[in-house]
Amino acid sequence: MSLLHGDIVHFRLVSTNSIRCTLQAAAVAWEAGKPLVIEEVDVAPPQAMEVRVKILFTSLCHTDVYFWEAKGQTPMFPRIFGHEAGGIVESVGEGVTDLKPGDHVLPVFTGECKECRPCKSEESNICDLLRINTDRGVMLNDGKSRFSIKGKPIYHFVGTSTFSEYTVTHVGCLAKINPAAPLDKVCVLSCGISTGLGATLNVAKPKKGSTVAIFGLGAVGLAAAEGARIAGASRIIGVDLNSKRFEEAKKFGVTEFVNPKEHNKPVQEVIAEMTDGGVDRSVECTGSVNAMISAFECVHDGWGVAVLVGVPNKDDAFQTHPMNVLNEKTLTGTFFGNYKPRSDLPAVVEKYMNKELELEKFITHEVPFAEINKAFEYMLKGEGIRCIIRMDA
Amino acid sequence: MSLLHGDIVHFRLVSTNSIRCTLQAAAVAWEAGKPLVIEEVDVAPPQAMEVRVKILFTSLCHTDVYFWEAKGQTPMFPRIFGHEAGGIVESVGEGVTDLKPGDHVLPVFTGECKECRPCKSEESNICDLLRINTDRGVMLNDGKSRFSIKGKPIYHFVGTSTFSEYTVTHVGCLAKINPAAPLDKVCVLSCGISTGLGATLNVAKPKKGSTVAIFGLGAVGLAAAEGARIAGASRIIGVDLNSKRFEEAKKFGVTEFVNPKEHNKPVQEVIAEMTDGGVDRSVECTGSVNAMISAFECVHDGWGVAVLVGVPNKDDAFQTHPMNVLNEKTLTGTFFGNYKPRSDLPAVVEKYMNKELELEKFITHEVPFAEINKAFEYMLKGEGIRCIIRMDA
Repeated sequence: MSLLHGDIVHFRLVSTNSIRCTLQAAAVAWEAGKPLVIEEVDVAPPQAMEVRVKILFTSLCHTDVYFWEAKGQTPMFPRIFGHEAGGIVESVGEGVTDLKPGDHVLPVFTGECKECRPCKSEESNICDLLRINTDRGVMLNDGKSRFSIKGKPIYHFVGTSTFSEYTVTHVGCLAKINPAAPLDKVCVLSCGISTGLGATLNVAKPKKGSTVAIFGLGAVGLAAAEGARIAGASRIIGVDLNSKRFEEAKKFGVTEFVNPKEHNKPVQEVIAEMTDGGVDRSVECTGSVNAMISAFECVHDGWGVAVLVGVPNKDDAFQTHPMNVLNEKTLTGTFFGNYKPRSDLPAVVEKYMNKELELEKFITHEVPFAEINKAFEYMLKGEGIRCIIRMDA
Repeated sequence: MSLLHGDIVHFRLVSTNSIRCTLQAAAVAWEAGKPLVIEEVDVAPPQAMEVRVKILFTSLCHTDVYFWEAKGQTPMFPRIFGHEAGGIVESVGEGVTDLKPGDHVLPVFTGECKECRPCKSEESNICDLLRINTDRGVMLNDGKSRFSIKGKPIYHFVGTSTFSEYTVTHVGCLAKINPAAPLDKVCVLSCGISTGLGATLNVAKPKKGSTVAIFGLGAVGLAAAEGARIAGASRIIGVDLNSKRFEEAKKFGVTEFVNPKEHNKPVQEVIAEMTDGGVDRSVECTGSVNAMISAFECVHDGWGVAVLVGVPNKDDAFQTHPMNVLNEKTLTGTFFGNYKPRSDLPAVVEKYMNKELELEKFITHEVPFAEINKAFEYMLKGEGIRCIIRMDA
């Protein structure tokens, strides 16, 4: 059954094979690129090390759109997308001791099992067990989905599937946060904003007074600029093919703007001329391999650090003359801003609570769940930064 | 006049156009790839900010051979090569206050003016004024050579030209060292050994107990291994196409050996299998772009750092899938091991003096100056590590 806009599906418990399932509204992607359809979906109870979460707010990130369009990847449908959200724990499966019903959580597309070598290392946030896997549409515990419609399974997406009133995730993919934090704001920390912010604060680490170039002024790039602003950079150079983005970017600390289309030389040369040889740090947030190369080559010899954030296409090749490396430029990359979801996100929420980090300016739209496809339209048109989807509306 | 083996040219001063020149023995490269010829060469006095140095010991580095062969670069002949050496200041030019006759110095192919932005930065050792320039065969002050034979100028090499009893360098290219340090040993710190050692100690910075792969077990690679040994690495994996190098490499702390020719899969995969996903650090000392790519791809996701040291060919392209970067591998490079020649080399000499750093094992051959071409033969045959050339013999 599909619902019309404005229809509300109330939470209720149904008994199926003596397992308590919740029959809930979820926005199902039946086919690549086709509007989501709000359906009644059975959400099975959490199994061992799993948690069932009532989602209150979710937001749309470009990665959802990318996999929904399924250009270039193996399509996996029907599927429930969504991976930026805030919610409340409804029930926990066997072995879950860190969370209990009522806890406020942010689901995260990558996890932290706290047991593997990367989790135990101070340097890595790429968990061996819960590393992002966009090709897996099922839960780890039994290799099955917790979502179904009349017995037919609906695939998960990156372990979160937050476009649903209820979802089931591995406990390692939930950050327990301050219950006083407004979930309609901090939900954007689930993915894009933390990714950009952490790329600057945790990886690029610009010193006070330094120069930083940000490639791509979408949500992630603006969050990277916000990080540079918080770090006290003196010049933040925004690079984007869309000059209309500059005005908005000023709110995030961007002081100068370069549109590569307006120059007849490579953007790395333009930036080198503006900055006496190159910027101190650059952060690449577009996923374009040419932008990655420019971001690397625009940093200063001797100390420049370029941080890649944007996800490339699978056949891309990063190419540069090795002398750029020999001249002491550093190339590095980050996944989720180097944040360990469970260990580090609570402190990012606190950065918002103490007004160091400004999240309101990222939130430009809001729609009720029934109008979730409007959020896709805004993103496809490049309108705004983040659209919050209210599940209770 | 060319000298026979064993001939000795004594220091004497001659007057030419009322400027005191020294007429000295120097090994002149007249043509690409042809044996050097020991000639009597006029060595003009030092001009402003220049120093004339009596070279006591010099050693042959692969870079000398590379530019002497002149395959691929613009040939510049006649030229006096040599850039690893130890000597004593003979006279100083106008404005030189840091050095005086009698000081013990190591000439360095790159300089430290102490005035430019990189010199003033803690992060860079790439001096704007005295950055290596292999295409310049003259001194900066007047654009002329200080070497001549019967009025015909002989080109300098990287500002050092140490295959000469006397040479003239910019003051910024001389590290003043402890006069108690034996110049016949510490002369090897002028280039290759410091380059490899610093790549590990200053850039890769492996933690105690970590795993390190070293690509290329020539002098620079062995020095990189020595750095890993000093840093307390638990496993040091040497990679070389020549398996005969393993036995010698053990002296430098190498614990395991991989010859890429003995495997039917890429060496980065071999290393990943040996180390549960990759080494913590790698140092590339061959200059082969394929080795650079392997060195980058063999480090562990999340924390691995690859340091490029070897100098590539001018048309090489470093190429990798950007997901390797996104998975938090870091690629960086170093020039002269990130040491600032004047500020940092004295402390490296002290590391030798206090027996932390073992230099003797790098020195496998010694020849008198008159037999300098033998040093080239050893290197071309891949025999030994460093050949010391004694100027007084």
